[in-house]
Amino acid sequence: MSASPVFVAIIGAGTVGSSFIPQLQNLIKNTTNRAIFPILIARSSKCLVSRDYTGLDLNNWSADLSASTITPPTFPNETLKWLKSAPGEVVLVDNTSSLEIAQSYPAFLSAGIHIVTPNKKGVSDSLELWDNIFNSARQGGNATGGYFYHEASCGAGLPIINTITDLVKTGDKIKKVEGVFSGTMSFLFNTFHPASGTCDEKFSAIVDKAKAAGYTEPDPRDDLNGLDVARKLTILARLSGLKVPNPTSFPIESLVPAELEAGSASDFMAGLPKFDSAIEERKAAAEKENKVLRFVGKLDVDKNQVSVGIEAFERGTAIASLRGSDNVISFFTERYGANPLVVQGAGAGAEVTAMGITADLIRVLERLN
Amino acid sequence: MSASPVFVAIIGAGTVGSSFIPQLQNLIKNTTNRAIFPILIARSSKCLVSRDYTGLDLNNWSADLSASTITPPTFPNETLKWLKSAPGEVVLVDNTSSLEIAQSYPAFLSAGIHIVTPNKKGVSDSLELWDNIFNSARQGGNATGGYFYHEASCGAGLPIINTITDLVKTGDKIKKVEGVFSGTMSFLFNTFHPASGTCDEKFSAIVDKAKAAGYTEPDPRDDLNGLDVARKLTILARLSGLKVPNPTSFPIESLVPAELEAGSASDFMAGLPKFDSAIEERKAAAEKENKVLRFVGKLDVDKNQVSVGIEAFERGTAIASLRGSDNVISFFTERYGANPLVVQGAGAGAEVTAMGITADLIRVLERLN
Repeated sequence: MSASPVFVAIIGAGTVGSSFIPQLQNLIKNTTNRAIFPILIARSSKCLVSRDYTGLDLNNWSADLSASTITPPTFPNETLKWLKSAPGEVVLVDNTSSLEIAQSYPAFLSAGIHIVTPNKKGVSDSLELWDNIFNSARQGGNATGGYFYHEASCGAGLPIINTITDLVKTGDKIKKVEGVFSGTMSFLFNTFHPASGTCDEKFSAIVDKAKAAGYTEPDPRDDLNGLDVARKLTILARLSGLKVPNPTSFPIESLVPAELEAGSASDFMAGLPKFDSAIEERKAAAEKENKVLRFVGKLDVDKNQVSVGIEAFERGTAIASLRGSDNVISFFTERYGANPLVVQGAGAGAEVTAMGITADLIRVLERLN
Repeated sequence: MSASPVFVAIIGAGTVGSSFIPQLQNLIKNTTNRAIFPILIARSSKCLVSRDYTGLDLNNWSADLSASTITPPTFPNETLKWLKSAPGEVVLVDNTSSLEIAQSYPAFLSAGIHIVTPNKKGVSDSLELWDNIFNSARQGGNATGGYFYHEASCGAGLPIINTITDLVKTGDKIKKVEGVFSGTMSFLFNTFHPASGTCDEKFSAIVDKAKAAGYTEPDPRDDLNGLDVARKLTILARLSGLKVPNPTSFPIESLVPAELEAGSASDFMAGLPKFDSAIEERKAAAEKENKVLRFVGKLDVDKNQVSVGIEAFERGTAIASLRGSDNVISFFTERYGANPLVVQGAGAGAEVTAMGITADLIRVLERLN
């Protein structure tokens, strides 16, 4: 044990948190040069807490948390105060998707607390919040600030954020980024317009099946409105140097027809078939050029443009060749020239999202003494 | 300037080194919290050296080096002794492809000198050398050893080594890795057997054109014998947990016919057309299954198998869809399941190789106080 101990506080113990905690256990076991103490596992109404900072026993954390009668410390005030009192470096792992929690990142970072998170809200909301986060973080030049890592905020465990960061830090210029950033959208369009073979099913029927299989949010409009993709594009655009004010400040093509925006999810599903012919026409037009439709996000640094929506792609390209619910992201840069650097694979799922968080936690540990 | 100064010594100032040095200049300029002093630029016969460790002026390094009459310190002895005397942390950047230099890594690492390198010889030669390197390095548990990073030893600047390392460190299990690891082989087979359209040219004619365009080594046998690919597979296999004794300890399909192994490069080129019919037959057989031929490396951890050679791939897969001289590497892991994590893009070229080195240098700097 040559390195100083590190204390880990976990907010959010849902699907992703439940996959992260076993990875943390494994990391604790395999880290022979440093003690890592999990000191907090909090969800909205209850928590497990190690008040004396000696660390929680994680072996039955889920049952222990269910049985707990302890109210979590208030967030941010009590939590921040308590973490500041820890006898060493602290990493806050935010496994929520809460904007409210993300709005407190600057306060935690300014207090020297490190943050790793898959929560895309903090880095994809207002530019002001983005600036506050990075100005408070060690990476942004605040010598006493905490480190901030968010690999899993885009593409889960795929090496997206760290790749674009490496490109920029080594002096490459990002020209364009384009890709499929939503597993749900990927599945819908790979099925509706396959790169090889044909599909005779209507778009609405595919949405229906995907919903039944649990591939969409309970209300599919939360996938189809494009906002999740817009948030991911906002993050990549900012890392590429564009000052995107907020995630709705550029064109976003919603696949939710205006007249189906209100009403229940069932109303939406019942109304969707009426719009099949419009998307069939676009498919036929793309097919004439030997192209396939994909729902993509794109950014162009020179043109200062970001957009999200349906586009047609030539067969044989990485985006057209996608399978299943995979993500694919292509980075066009000055150094890489005409052929982009491409990363592809599962961009959602609890295990791979947790992997992104754990890899970030390791990056923080590697930077501490 | 809150962090301690770091001294950088560069061995090898050819194509890659000439791209790395401007990236280093850029890094020095942009690193506001730490002084970085380049203290040595050495090639075989001459060098630039800052004997008092105050740092070289890099603005005219190439002309200065050409004009230099200073013989480099002997390697390893004088170099090691001098770097050990530096008044701070030292990073050795080995831009050569020399096994002899790599054999001294353990001595430098044991002395606390960090190493970043695109040189694949050290990590792909004997398992004994691999073990010596990692046992001497900080990553291998030697608390006073130097850090060792070699991203550019496989796929140049593509995130390959760091991705596989992250997967393993976070507890994923690598099941299989397969891909196209040679830009030259990629170009030859993407041309000879395209995923869309057809090619009527003979394989030998394509090799001829590639040689004329400078896409192959001066003697194309150095690409076609498969050894470069075998070395990259050796690295990935070891990172996946396989104890590969050396880069020729598994099946390697050489595309150099036995009777053309001897003789000059011209003799080889003159003799190659005689073997066109054999590869044409394999192309036709693959085509019958709607597959295309690619020259790939593969490893299977459960089966403890590594191999390098021609394989047929279904159209629509990432490997079949390759263009130009791109590399593509697919990682099949326990967490990623049936669809692999895929990284694709230029896997050779001075600028992108230098980028891999610079990113590694940044990783070392980030781990130092």
